[in-house]
Amino acid sequence: MVGFAAMGTESMSWPLRRAARLCGGAVAVVDAASGTQVTYAELQGRVDALGAALAGELAVQPGGRVGVLAANSLAHLELFLGVPSAGRVVVSLNTRLAVEELAALATDARLAALVADDTNADAATAIAERAGIPALIRVGEEHEALLARAGAGGSSAADNSAGGDALATISYTGGTTGRPKGVMLSHANLLANARHNLIATGHTAQDRWLHVCPMFHVAGTANVVAATWVGAHQTVLPRFDAAAVLSAIEQHAITHLNLVPTMLGMLLDHEREHGATADLSSLTHLQYAASPITPELQRRVLERFPDVDVAQFYGMTEAAPTVSTCTPADHRREDGRRLRSTGAPVVGVEVEIRDAVDGTPVPPGTVGEVWVRGPNVMLGYWEQPEATAQALHEGWYRTGDAAYADEDGYLFLVDRLKDMIISGGENVYSVEVEAALAEHPAVREAAVFGVPHPRWGEAVHAVVTVDRAVTPDELIAHCRPLIAGFKVPRSIEVTQHPLPRSGAGKLLKQELRGPYWSGRERNIS
Amino acid sequence: MVGFAAMGTESMSWPLRRAARLCGGAVAVVDAASGTQVTYAELQGRVDALGAALAGELAVQPGGRVGVLAANSLAHLELFLGVPSAGRVVVSLNTRLAVEELAALATDARLAALVADDTNADAATAIAERAGIPALIRVGEEHEALLARAGAGGSSAADNSAGGDALATISYTGGTTGRPKGVMLSHANLLANARHNLIATGHTAQDRWLHVCPMFHVAGTANVVAATWVGAHQTVLPRFDAAAVLSAIEQHAITHLNLVPTMLGMLLDHEREHGATADLSSLTHLQYAASPITPELQRRVLERFPDVDVAQFYGMTEAAPTVSTCTPADHRREDGRRLRSTGAPVVGVEVEIRDAVDGTPVPPGTVGEVWVRGPNVMLGYWEQPEATAQALHEGWYRTGDAAYADEDGYLFLVDRLKDMIISGGENVYSVEVEAALAEHPAVREAAVFGVPHPRWGEAVHAVVTVDRAVTPDELIAHCRPLIAGFKVPRSIEVTQHPLPRSGAGKLLKQELRGPYWSGRERNIS
Repeated sequence: MVGFAAMGTESMSWPLRRAARLCGGAVAVVDAASGTQVTYAELQGRVDALGAALAGELAVQPGGRVGVLAANSLAHLELFLGVPSAGRVVVSLNTRLAVEELAALATDARLAALVADDTNADAATAIAERAGIPALIRVGEEHEALLARAGAGGSSAADNSAGGDALATISYTGGTTGRPKGVMLSHANLLANARHNLIATGHTAQDRWLHVCPMFHVAGTANVVAATWVGAHQTVLPRFDAAAVLSAIEQHAITHLNLVPTMLGMLLDHEREHGATADLSSLTHLQYAASPITPELQRRVLERFPDVDVAQFYGMTEAAPTVSTCTPADHRREDGRRLRSTGAPVVGVEVEIRDAVDGTPVPPGTVGEVWVRGPNVMLGYWEQPEATAQALHEGWYRTGDAAYADEDGYLFLVDRLKDMIISGGENVYSVEVEAALAEHPAVREAAVFGVPHPRWGEAVHAVVTVDRAVTPDELIAHCRPLIAGFKVPRSIEVTQHPLPRSGAGKLLKQELRGPYWSGRERNIS
Repeated sequence: MVGFAAMGTESMSWPLRRAARLCGGAVAVVDAASGTQVTYAELQGRVDALGAALAGELAVQPGGRVGVLAANSLAHLELFLGVPSAGRVVVSLNTRLAVEELAALATDARLAALVADDTNADAATAIAERAGIPALIRVGEEHEALLARAGAGGSSAADNSAGGDALATISYTGGTTGRPKGVMLSHANLLANARHNLIATGHTAQDRWLHVCPMFHVAGTANVVAATWVGAHQTVLPRFDAAAVLSAIEQHAITHLNLVPTMLGMLLDHEREHGATADLSSLTHLQYAASPITPELQRRVLERFPDVDVAQFYGMTEAAPTVSTCTPADHRREDGRRLRSTGAPVVGVEVEIRDAVDGTPVPPGTVGEVWVRGPNVMLGYWEQPEATAQALHEGWYRTGDAAYADEDGYLFLVDRLKDMIISGGENVYSVEVEAALAEHPAVREAAVFGVPHPRWGEAVHAVVTVDRAVTPDELIAHCRPLIAGFKVPRSIEVTQHPLPRSGAGKLLKQELRGPYWSGRERNIS
């Protein structure tokens, strides 16, 4: 058989190129912080200049890695689209990490260049020095001058053939525990995910997106490719700030917004405290993703936005990221039975729930591990063949998430497998206990994990953030009628401090659990 | 770099498997002729049984070709989805071809089995004998008994790994001129096209499709994958018949319909002659594709269906097939300037207009050849490496269509390159002349082509079908103010007979032109 790899040709340059051709005069990106705005034709020009600068002045080889350490901005969005378009690899780093951690990532990725904004300039200088990065570019005048020189040189970014299964981005995950893993996504991965988002959400050129999730996380860029492909209007906020988001929605007549649940909560809290002064009536589509939502927050969101299409997306960096979605119709069902679901697999992605031990598919209603496959599934972990081999199995990605599917194929996440507690031989899914605790009116957030216990192996322990005073015994009594006895926490720490979370809003349970386990091994990986 | 070909895993089995899981109890297919209907769970069961029968009783090897010679039916749809799902290759043959032609195709494809319905049973027997096909299965009792035996055997179609770039279908094109070419489409090609259709049309599980274009042509199956993936309701008509289509729309509350322009015209003519008695108010989306439409027919369609989303799709078998679409909004623009366009490239497919001679991109407004690339572009022509090498060039497919793009990136088809007439050194696009002729009220259809001329090389000749008497001189006088002198036909044949068309409704200009050129070579290929 003739083996033409037509697939190999599709490139991250396609979405922008299509938009520049079909709606070159339309506004592509508004940088809310600076007030700068560019049309799709101008964005294409800037991306072409970036490609020329990478190949020319910056001498980054094809396949070379370009780091980004910056808040969200027009430049950040350009780098995300433009570096892969030019056949190089973009590595956007978490600005909340310490210089030491960042230097380790930069070294791991062997960055050939690092682009940083003013806020991160000092850190970038230190990182570049430690990691021996040849080129350091400051967003702003320096970056603009670079583009101007490259653009004026008339040298275009040489029509390169990078695409398909070639590496486009590396995203580091798991920075808080163990060795960080660089998730390798190809051009085809990112474009497949964009297609899946387009099918699930139905983007159009008339959409007006607000990008506010950090672009160093896949939640921040997930909609950029799709929005660009259809030629939508995209406003970029440097970082999440409730007041700024509310006023940006009004000012830019935003129709589409993607947030993590924590941000959603802060948005509603801000309105509760300061009044709903901003006009949010332009909003038609509100996504939340990247971490579980509490039923209480879900209820508040649906009440606040009765006419908005509210959708949940479940996924992970390794799946580029979309796996399943709980649609607006699912959210508005009268029986409410899909509100706790992370939805059904989107068109294009296959999901199976498999036994956590033997890897065979389990029937509906039975908890197992979520396995995912599709053209969106990552190439692997950067230079970590063992971790890759553990995660990828005959085309399937093992997510490490514990879930069950109902009879309709809807997924219900139960826990991270590694967060499952084994107490006296019983499996306790921490999320179930957290949900029980969260139903107490005083509880704002709860984190449940296992701590060493001489008799049961592990005992269920909770850390709870409260709005008003409440004792551990009151909370334990509250849980008893809600969950089985062996699931009720044996001990509870009550605190006023917010729980530790990652940049993407993920609860960092490991930070809470770690001290209890120092010097010990847990028996679940 | 780790080269996990995650792409290689996606299979034609995915769409049905998703539908069977998420909406197994919903009606999948209604076979209008027999009245049979199956749910998605039942369809999955039948497809699984088919796979078991292919691997077992029929002993078709993985990758082996299974021919189909049948009108549209549940069985035909099942074979289209099920044969590739089982890792075999489906070859649906044009039922309008002669036995001799069909036997040649069956021999070319080395069919391991042939499935035929009653109408085509005699032809199938003759073909099987001439082509030495080991297994011949009759749709109906024999086919049902085969599935029942395979299903009862409990042997499932062995979870096979065929997918990605593996061959899924062979579709023969160009059966009327030269050696027929078997277009090889992979699993990834067909799934990519389904994604593009889903993005362009926004299919949902609530859609109710009517499939009436012949399934031996890509126009007949183009929406099957997409409709299956979302779990839509699909009604299948054996073949086009205006009265049957109209009554099926009413009876099955059809929302989505795809026709070739000729069928659209026959539908409207039927209503004009017999009155608009059927209730078509369920219809929300009407596609036309596969051949050019006249402005007059377009006007009639838009007037008849003022509240329906009318969309044109342009594509070809080699592109699986979708390339561009003229959207409902394009059709309803007040300035009407996109009505003659075949639309803008869909998300996911790249199009360039390139100089027909040197292959370099041409600017907007300049006519050139349409080049197409994307994950939907075919693997090549079955066992014809030379034809493949001519058609595929560095990931691009050269369509042989002459077109220009306007400033907005919309495509305007001008002609087939091979239908371009070179008369006295001037290029004449036959379509332009046909459009001028079609504006005459007496003209129903026109075919324009070059005939040998001792002085100009070629002279413009037209064959015109008329509704009432009109002379060639009157038609020539009609054309003069509309097009340049060198484009005006030198000779016109006026006839009452319909023009010859293929099963897909394509004008077979070669049949008209052939007699003029017998024994001669044209200088355009």
